[in-house]
This record gives sequence, structure tokens and C-alpha cells, in this order.
Amino acid sequence: MLLKVVVWLLATSAVLAFDWTEFRMERKYKDYLQKRSYYLAEEEDRSVGSDIELTAKEQIVNERLMALKRKELAEGLENPAGFIPWNHMFDVLNRINSSEIFDILRRMPKGGILHAHDTALCSTDYVISLTYEPNLWQCTDPETGALSFKFSREAPTNTETCQWTSVAAERTKLGEENYNSGLRSQLSLYTTDPINHNRDVDSIWRQFMGIFGVNDGLLSYAPIWKAYYKQFLKEMMEDGVQYLELRGTLPPLYDLDGKTYHEEEILHIYQDATREFKQENPTFIGAKFIYAPVRVVDDAGLPALMDKVRELHEQYPNFMAGFDLVGQEDKGRPLIDFSKEILGLPDSINFFFHAGETNWNGLTDDNLIDAVLLGTKRIGHGYAVLKHPRVLKQVKRDKIALEVCPVSNQVLRLVADMRNHPGAVLLANKEYPVVISSDDPSFWEAKPLTHDFYMAFLGLASERQDLRLLKQLAINSIKYSAMTPLEKMNAMRLWEAEWKKFIEELSA
Amino acid sequence: MLLKVVVWLLATSAVLAFDWTEFRMERKYKDYLQKRSYYLAEEEDRSVGSDIELTAKEQIVNERLMALKRKELAEGLENPAGFIPWNHMFDVLNRINSSEIFDILRRMPKGGILHAHDTALCSTDYVISLTYEPNLWQCTDPETGALSFKFSREAPTNTETCQWTSVAAERTKLGEENYNSGLRSQLSLYTTDPINHNRDVDSIWRQFMGIFGVNDGLLSYAPIWKAYYKQFLKEMMEDGVQYLELRGTLPPLYDLDGKTYHEEEILHIYQDATREFKQENPTFIGAKFIYAPVRVVDDAGLPALMDKVRELHEQYPNFMAGFDLVGQEDKGRPLIDFSKEILGLPDSINFFFHAGETNWNGLTDDNLIDAVLLGTKRIGHGYAVLKHPRVLKQVKRDKIALEVCPVSNQVLRLVADMRNHPGAVLLANKEYPVVISSDDPSFWEAKPLTHDFYMAFLGLASERQDLRLLKQLAINSIKYSAMTPLEKMNAMRLWEAEWKKFIEELSA
Repeated sequence: MLLKVVVWLLATSAVLAFDWTEFRMERKYKDYLQKRSYYLAEEEDRSVGSDIELTAKEQIVNERLMALKRKELAEGLENPAGFIPWNHMFDVLNRINSSEIFDILRRMPKGGILHAHDTALCSTDYVISLTYEPNLWQCTDPETGALSFKFSREAPTNTETCQWTSVAAERTKLGEENYNSGLRSQLSLYTTDPINHNRDVDSIWRQFMGIFGVNDGLLSYAPIWKAYYKQFLKEMMEDGVQYLELRGTLPPLYDLDGKTYHEEEILHIYQDATREFKQENPTFIGAKFIYAPVRVVDDAGLPALMDKVRELHEQYPNFMAGFDLVGQEDKGRPLIDFSKEILGLPDSINFFFHAGETNWNGLTDDNLIDAVLLGTKRIGHGYAVLKHPRVLKQVKRDKIALEVCPVSNQVLRLVADMRNHPGAVLLANKEYPVVISSDDPSFWEAKPLTHDFYMAFLGLASERQDLRLLKQLAINSIKYSAMTPLEKMNAMRLWEAEWKKFIEELSA
Repeated sequence: MLLKVVVWLLATSAVLAFDWTEFRMERKYKDYLQKRSYYLAEEEDRSVGSDIELTAKEQIVNERLMALKRKELAEGLENPAGFIPWNHMFDVLNRINSSEIFDILRRMPKGGILHAHDTALCSTDYVISLTYEPNLWQCTDPETGALSFKFSREAPTNTETCQWTSVAAERTKLGEENYNSGLRSQLSLYTTDPINHNRDVDSIWRQFMGIFGVNDGLLSYAPIWKAYYKQFLKEMMEDGVQYLELRGTLPPLYDLDGKTYHEEEILHIYQDATREFKQENPTFIGAKFIYAPVRVVDDAGLPALMDKVRELHEQYPNFMAGFDLVGQEDKGRPLIDFSKEILGLPDSINFFFHAGETNWNGLTDDNLIDAVLLGTKRIGHGYAVLKHPRVLKQVKRDKIALEVCPVSNQVLRLVADMRNHPGAVLLANKEYPVVISSDDPSFWEAKPLTHDFYMAFLGLASERQDLRLLKQLAINSIKYSAMTPLEKMNAMRLWEAEWKKFIEELSA
């Protein structure tokens, strides 16, 4: 009995002495921390890359890469103006190119480029090297100072606005360095002039379209056309990219004998070159072509255009992956203008429409609705897609991949700070299929794909997105390509072999 | 029989002559157009404002307003650099202020301001007028050139970095115009210097915080403190705003007799002034206070801070609406640092946490997760919220209103082109509760709320969002306020009366 009383007294005093408020607080705090980890886990689960499980070796590479990324972020928090994705890429290009992250991303097998344009591909150095070819003439527009080129055995006929002189002679006259640097400034938008930061979208597009004008006469010379394309495949492979879906306008080509090459023949050149390149490069996956004429066609020209699409599709049912329309969306005709004709095309023709490459809301961006309703397989850019919940629903349901081109969107003035790019939201939600692409890398002195991967990784992605994101983006570029299931299997095999090599090298 | 044959022949030839391909095409096209209208309708249904049905008179006002909006958009498509929301507001302030849209929005009863800070409210003209009060002294920091003010019967004691002179004497010495323009430049961030476009967030925040330093000695003089607050209520009412939830740090006030006024007394001043103002202005709804000290408190100071929150809550259970923490999120302590103490506060204290006022992704923006887990009633800014799907889910589920402050986010360098503001996405999805607010209108020479409504209407909203959006935003500011249900009913009654007057005037 005494024992019982003693035990009871001890127990009571223990209970009384116990701080229940403190205990409840601790429990409340633990609950909060646990819920917090659930929130973080749920967001991580939803983010692009979360389906990937890294191997032990991949984890080694990941740790190396993430240490570099975290360092960049920590420095960015300290000094926001030094954070690369905050800057205009032109102002930090040297810093990017000499960074270790860039080096790793360059070596990383990134799959394919699904959004790039025919004459905006190769390095500027290569384009300049083409102007050393014989029989090349140039003239300078007296008003704009814009260069034009033409290959010809004799000097082409002068017009009032175009006095042809030999490129070789001009280069001698100005001095090689001088000449080449002048030419370079006309072949890309690259400049570190701060005025560039405050340009509007129309102003930069005018200059951008001008470049297509400058290199047109140079590249549409048939022998060069093929060389240029093969050169890009080479540069692309060197940049860790094994597959290409090329959008092209198929402009008439010419040669020294006065022959004009039309659409079918140009497609033939592309197909031939692709085959040759594949023979020379066994790790190359392949290439397909998306016929993408400019969206300024008038109604009278529409039937002929659609006939051309049908013909090319019949002649190249596999190599020609589909149809698109290009040019500045804000200024060109909207998709709805073409919709009736597009609906008349055979079901076997796939669409890869540019849509929503704009900052407008309820105007140009309505192309997103039309693209989806016309059955597009992917959306070019889709920069405005977050403003269209009905389109997002369909994108998710039908797995319509969004071709996100971060550098293009910054250079062409849709966004300044990369962290404001809507792709950041897409990368946080894996139900939206995303591929990263480069659009016109030649025109901003970018590598075929690495600069865009760099911006996606450091500017768009969360601090927590890592090698798994990058691997998923590479896989997405095959998954959402226009390849057949069999082609995709083969592509995956070729990409995986490269990926394995990359991981071996970097984890060694 | 012959007749039958003739009918049969006619019928067959009609069937044969009928163009079935054309017929099928027409049907396909009609289907497409119908689906298109469904898509547009679904997006319109989801957008903020779609629940409102306009009366005949409201429709008249709407047509007038929308004609003006469509004109701005059409001109913007023609000349993107001229489109106001593309520009930094400082560069287009005169154009905004003299525009008819602005005039209509200014007159429109906009409900309440739910996000604004104590000493960043009144027009600069008014603040300058305060410096004409007697007994005011100033000193200039020899290093930064920053002014400090102090009211005192005698010249305050000089220190090494602060030599006090009389403001009246300085003004005479420099000339009134000269003096006032120098002062003005220290009271707001306003400048049309293009260098402003390329500043980073830390740099602008340093200048921004500096303004609080300049006006501190001026405004924390007790008699002026009250006058400043009442002046803002007046400016707010003139700007079509009838209700205020003020965030304040409750800094110590002083007077000429050396008395220091502490938190309770300052809250008392606010409450008194609010009552007085209500008596003088029957259409004024009221005001509440959110205690929002700066987030730089150290751990040692935390318990005292929390005690203060409890005390103020007990003393002002209705007037003090709740608790928040302020200051540059990227530099201050994250919410998780305060979480344990915050969880210890009584359940009756509401939270209105700043969270996600940043461009970072997976860093500072994690405050959004903590804000929601700590049970915040609204989120201050939430600029980064789209990058957090789990937070978005909770925002939708618990109707946690996002306090979107477009002008603040542009001036403080989170976004350049307003059309990239994440609020555009929120306004496209009415399941996310949104209110528009102004943060620190005094520091960017903005009206209490109209400039933010202007940017929301022209920069964030779709071309298709109209008066219904604006009406919904006004209603939201009452719906998501900290008022009791009874107070909200009364508020709606007072706002509706003003709205009716506005519609009568504008539709006349």
C-alpha cells in the first residue's frame, strides 16, 4: 500500500511537472515540418525529370553538376546582376562559353533538335568561310547598307540599287579582318551595345529577317546549300545532338549554269545529304524535314501552296515529317486564315505549327487555339500557352509537345530575365510535354543546342532540378519527334550508347 | 412508270452532280469553327470576371472602355514600343495619367487596397508640403548624400556624420524650386534615366529602402504620423478606394516634448484617425491594420516580437487584422526561421504573409510553401506562385487570395514587360483568387490604386477581359479582406452605391 502511494505520488508529480504546452508545440512543429517535406516531395514528383532514377555513376555526374549549379545560384543571390540568366545572353556569352557547366552540357548527349530553321543553323565562322568560295559577288543596298551575295561566273547585271563587285576584290580592298568583321555584324544579331536591351520585338525582328536576306544569295547556291546543311549536322553532332527536325521554306536554289532547283529537288538534296551523313557518322540518328513556308501567302496563292504540300508529302512520305508556317506571328496571317485549306489536307500529313510566339494576350496568341484544333502534333514556342487554360488542357491530354526555345525568346525580345520564361512553369509540371530547342542558333552565335540547355537548366528550372531533368529533356526530344515507333527505338539505342559514354567519362 | 424513271434519272444525276468532297470539307470546317467558339467560351468562362453579368448601363460603360482598350491594343500591335505596359512605367507616366482609360479607372470605385505599407502611401507633393512645418531640421549624410529629418524646438545635437541645419534656412539658401526638386528625387524612385532599365533587384531595393530612411524622421513625428495616414485615406477615397488594410512596422514615434510613442499607442492613433475619417466620410468603409515588422529579427529578439503580436492582438482584436513580415525576401530571413514561433501564436491571429516576391526558383520562393502551411489567409505578391503547383492547389482549395501588385513588381525589377507578369495567368483562371494592390504607391508617384488597375487591365488581362474583370477585382478586394461577414455586407453596400453612381455618370 505504501509502495502504491509512493508510485502514485511520483507519477502525479511527473505528469504535473511535464510541460504539456511545450509538448503540443513540439508536435505542431513536427507536423508542420513533415507537411513541408510532403509539399516539397509532391512538387518534386510533378516536375520534369522526376521519373528518372539515376544510376550510381549518374549520381556522381549529378553531384558534380549540381555543385556547380548551386554555386552559380548562391553567387546570384549575392549579386543578382551577375547571374547569367538575368542578363541578355550577348552580354555574358564569354562567361557562359568558358564555364564548366557549359562544358558538361556541351558534352552531354542531348537527343535531337526539333525546332530549327534551314538557313539559321551554322556557326558564323563557317558562313564567313563560305564567302571565300570563287565566283562570289556582292552588292550593298545604298539605303540600308545590307549586303547581298550571288555566285556567278560573270559579274551579275547591275541595277539601280545593286552594283555588283567581287567579294575577293572587296575583301582585299578593305583588308581581310575589316571585311570579315563587317560581314559578321550582318550575319548575326550579336552585339553588346546596351541599346539592344531596349529594343522592341518589331525592331529586332526586322534586323532578324534582314539576316535571312543577307545569307540568302550565299546559301541558296545549290552546291553550298547541301554543304551548309551537312556542316550543321556536323556541328550538331559535335554539340552532342544526334537528330534533327528541320523546318524549311524550300526557296529556289540556283547554280552557275542557270539552273533553278525547286522544292522536290531541294528535298532530294536534304535527303541525300542526310543519307551520306548517316553513312559517315554511325552514331547519327537521322533527320526529317518540316515544310514551313512563310505565313504571308495571300488567298490566291493558297491552293498552289497546299498542292505543293500534298505533292511533297506523297513524294517524301517519311522524310517530310509535316507542315508548318513561319515568320513573325504578330505580323503574319493567323492560322485561322489558312484553316479551311489545312483541314483539306490528307490526315496523314502532320502539323507542327508555330503558335503563341508572342507577348500579346487574346490577339496573336489565339493561334494556339487554332493550332490545337487543327491537330498539331507539337507547338512551336507556345510562349503564350499559360494564358490559355483550354489549350493547356488539350496539350496535357493529347501530349502535344511544346518546343521551348529560351535563347530565341530572349534575343527576339519576348522576355528579359530568363527566370520569367513560361518554360519555368512547364518544367515544374511534367504533364506538359516539353522539348528544348534552339530555333536559329546561327543568328545569336549559339551552339546548336547547348546554350538553350544551359538556360533551361540554370534559368528556367528550379534549384532542385538536376541531371534527371536534362536526361528527361533529351529523352523527350526523341519521344516527341516525328519518328516512327521503330525509328524511335533505334534512336533511343543510339542516344543511350552516347549517354553511357558520357556518364563513363564524367564519372571517371 | 415513265414518270418514275424520269424522277429516278433526275435524282441520280443530282446525287452524282453533288460535290460530296466539298460538302464534307464544309462540314469539317464548320465543326472546326464551332469547336473554336467552344474553346474561346471555355477560356472566357474560366477567366476572372466571367461570373459578372453587366446591366444595360454597365454595358454602355463597358463599350466605351473596351473601345479605348482595343484602340490601345491595335496601336500596340502596330508599334510595340509604344504600348504602355511594355514600357517601364516611369517612361510613360505622363501618357498614362492623361489617358481616357486612366480617367475612367480613376473614377471607378475599386473597393479596397489590401496590400500597402505605412510610410509609402501619400503623394510626393504632400510629403514635400510636410517639410514646410515649423521646427524641422535636416542633415545630409556626407557619404551618400541622403537626407534625414527631425522635428525639434532646438537644433538637434550634431554628430560626426550629421550636421543639423534648419529646413527653412536650407530652402531659402537653395531656392524653393531647387530645394524641392532635390528633395523630390530622394522621396521616390521616379526617374526617366534609361540606366534604370538595367538595374538589378538588389540595387533598386537599396534605393527603395533608402526612401524609408529619408522620410522616417519626417513621418515618425507623432502629429504628422496621424496627418499622413489621414491624408492617404483622403487620397485613396479621391482615387475611388473606400477601404484599406495597412501593413505597418509600428516604429517608435516622437514629439517635441521628448515623448516616445510605442506600438499600442500608434495603433491607437491609427484607430482614432480611422474613426474620425469615417465620421467625416460616410462612404468610407473603414481600415484595418496588419502588424508587419521587418524580417531581419534575430532569434534572441523573436520571443519579444511574438509577445508584442499577442498583446496587440488582445488589445485590438478587430482593428488589428493580423501579422506579416516585411523587407526584401531575397535578403531577409525565410519564413521557416520564424515558423516555430508563429505556430505558437493563438489561432485567432490571422496571417497575411509576403511570399514569393522574387524571380528565384527553389530558393527564396519556398516561402510560398511555408506561408501556406502556416495558414496564411492571403499571400503578399506571390509573384513566383506559378512555379509551385502544390501551393497553387492549396491556394485554389483554401481560397488564399494573391495580392498582385503589378507596378511594384515592375519598378522593383521582377518583370519588365507587364505582359510577362504571372498575374496574367492568374487572371485567366478564376479559381485562383486575386486582388490588385499597390504596395508603395508614394515611391513611384502612382495614385493609391489606379495605376495598378490600369496595368492589370491593359497589360495583364486578355484582350477579351472587360469591365466585368474590373468589377470582379473590386468585389474580390472586399471578399478577400479581413473584414467580418457583417462588415463585408456593409462594405458591399457602400461600394455598390458608389459603383451605381459611377455607372450612372459614365453611361449618361
